[in-house]
Amino acid sequence: MTPFFASRWITKPDHVTELPGSGLPQGFRAAGVACGIKPSGAQDLALLVSDVPETTSAARFTRSGVLGAPVLLTMERSDLEHIRAVVVNSGNANTATGGMGLDNAAKMQGSAAIAAGVGSERAVAVASTGVIGVQLPMYEVTRGIMAAAHELAADGDQAFAAAIQTTDAFEKRARLQVELPSGTVNLTAQCKGAGMIQPGFATLLVFVQTDAAMSPETCDLLLGVTVKRSFERISVDGQLSTSDTVILQASGASNITIGPETEDELRFGEALDALMRQLALLVAKDGEGARRTGRVVVHGGSQELVESVARAIANSPLVKTALYGGDPNWGRIAQAAGAATAGLAPVPLDIAIEGVTVCAHGAARPFDAAALTEAVQRDEVQYEVGLPGDGAETEVFFSDLGHEYVTINADYTT
Amino acid sequence: MTPFFASRWITKPDHVTELPGSGLPQGFRAAGVACGIKPSGAQDLALLVSDVPETTSAARFTRSGVLGAPVLLTMERSDLEHIRAVVVNSGNANTATGGMGLDNAAKMQGSAAIAAGVGSERAVAVASTGVIGVQLPMYEVTRGIMAAAHELAADGDQAFAAAIQTTDAFEKRARLQVELPSGTVNLTAQCKGAGMIQPGFATLLVFVQTDAAMSPETCDLLLGVTVKRSFERISVDGQLSTSDTVILQASGASNITIGPETEDELRFGEALDALMRQLALLVAKDGEGARRTGRVVVHGGSQELVESVARAIANSPLVKTALYGGDPNWGRIAQAAGAATAGLAPVPLDIAIEGVTVCAHGAARPFDAAALTEAVQRDEVQYEVGLPGDGAETEVFFSDLGHEYVTINADYTT
Repeated sequence: MTPFFASRWITKPDHVTELPGSGLPQGFRAAGVACGIKPSGAQDLALLVSDVPETTSAARFTRSGVLGAPVLLTMERSDLEHIRAVVVNSGNANTATGGMGLDNAAKMQGSAAIAAGVGSERAVAVASTGVIGVQLPMYEVTRGIMAAAHELAADGDQAFAAAIQTTDAFEKRARLQVELPSGTVNLTAQCKGAGMIQPGFATLLVFVQTDAAMSPETCDLLLGVTVKRSFERISVDGQLSTSDTVILQASGASNITIGPETEDELRFGEALDALMRQLALLVAKDGEGARRTGRVVVHGGSQELVESVARAIANSPLVKTALYGGDPNWGRIAQAAGAATAGLAPVPLDIAIEGVTVCAHGAARPFDAAALTEAVQRDEVQYEVGLPGDGAETEVFFSDLGHEYVTINADYTT
Repeated sequence: MTPFFASRWITKPDHVTELPGSGLPQGFRAAGVACGIKPSGAQDLALLVSDVPETTSAARFTRSGVLGAPVLLTMERSDLEHIRAVVVNSGNANTATGGMGLDNAAKMQGSAAIAAGVGSERAVAVASTGVIGVQLPMYEVTRGIMAAAHELAADGDQAFAAAIQTTDAFEKRARLQVELPSGTVNLTAQCKGAGMIQPGFATLLVFVQTDAAMSPETCDLLLGVTVKRSFERISVDGQLSTSDTVILQASGASNITIGPETEDELRFGEALDALMRQLALLVAKDGEGARRTGRVVVHGGSQELVESVARAIANSPLVKTALYGGDPNWGRIAQAAGAATAGLAPVPLDIAIEGVTVCAHGAARPFDAAALTEAVQRDEVQYEVGLPGDGAETEVFFSDLGHEYVTINADYTT
């Protein structure tokens, strides 16, 4: 089995152990069923519940100005600090569906609250992913929620993960055991999203569970910090989904409590950080036929500038096609960096690819082109860019841009 | 012959007449030669001069933070209000070439001043386009400048236009006669740039000449306004070249003077505007194998917001691949608009494609899918997006994203 932590860019902390197979942290059950939304007949309805009434949670959502009905509903009508159940459908994003779409999301929330036995619909988060502008088939969805409730199981995470996917080429799921000073806790996650944003929006959905106990504030702090360092650090095609949702739930069933500003919090945070970064990298890696993943590291004197330069490089179709082609064309890195530093010319750029300096202080440097060409044809390619000054640094992971992207996206609805 | 004003989106003013063939306005001569920069042996050195000492001019340059040496030199060392000669090489961008690159640009400027007989090198603008990070072959370049000087001719605009191109698939050149209240003047332009930014940066170079007389301030005003409405309103792949240069020269040899705030200025401005917009549209249309050109018109209450939404749509790889595929997938328009209106949800979007409303107040509307699919398979596709409010409107022209883009850009230097 390929280990979950397979990238040279992400280090598994020593106190984290990968577990094989399936199985959720104590207190959680999940299921995934086929209810008939996807024409293929594949699994498309997923339900996950914590049986512990004291479960705490935190959530993050897309910042898009065009929101799917489930995102609007969950943001406004769920108690985000006490999410016990998550209901998800794939195959239909319930976006641009007007008032009926909101009603349908509310029906999903209510049905899931009853089916999962969590009492209040405010304890339920709803997520949908798939095509947009089409109303959900509510008879099938409701029946699917009931069917999923009957199949809820402590090892239902694999079925849950399958039922939230759309065009993902591989499963994105992890099971970790985390050794803390106060004891051992479990940490699992299921993620949906493909490296190039896919037809139907390639929503990013991430659900994370732990049996550690923590306050909603700790949940929120840990999720906020780790999302910033993971899912906010990937560039697929620079697009922003209408439905991105990330939820962390802590059942507390392990009886290990993570207090604020403790060694437990620090070490749990390290585990969560590695988990989230590796999942985010898997999203960047998963594009149908995507060949390579890039990582750009930019350092300099201004955090704002290193951030915008890193984004410009990671989103540049010229850089992405060069990555796809296994082409060490560093001029494109310079061009993208130039666009992000508009008005600041001349910027004395340093550029290195796979550790080889190709441009120093804005001028080309001789390098072994054959060796570098070979280096950029591996699965992961690293670019480093230096701007003037010190103290600020950032990274972005990104996928390449190839023929498969065009084929998939040019021919989706016709 | 296909007329220059071939798009339904740009109206030729009634007082403008297209002229066939070649020939510059009075006072100008030009030439284009092959000096040996391009391995293909194609024309790669272009020279244009006004023989009138009183020639006025104005210029605009890329805002990139990484500037080609010729741009830096011309911005700093040329008298931008009195450019008489323009020297251009293609095949090498003289960018990321350090101090030697600047020296070489200065040598081109000095050689051109002597060869064209304009006295001071401050009357010469220099532009280079092509691969980056490689020093210019100065022996060949200097010899080319001398050869071009010998071939300068009043009908040299066609050779000039050919010698400034790199990967352009077709010529972008116009000859117009403009009827003004004070008399008839000539207006010509040569442009280089391809719809998808090409390997070697697809620099945009635009040179415009007229035999009208006008002050440098009028030149600058007219160029500034029309560049904003033309070359700043196209999206190729969202990239910004290191070398973009636009120069307007007025020889005054017609003895027709365009005074400030006159009917002459207004009507000359209309002609220049139509010329620049059509040239910009040709740049968007010219990508190897690009099938279609899109135009997005966004209206609403905030100029800043309509601008960012129009850019987001025009730059979206999802929208561009749908345009390439002839696919009326309006969800991608909604997604791009959502990304540009982050934090403002819910935005009640209106979306129409080729006049057919597909989304009203944020919700899908039924439409004849077969008819719309047929409509979006024509050469030009128009998208209209309505945001809340009134009074602000903008447009952006954009090219599609297809297999040819990937092929060209993935395999350029290897």
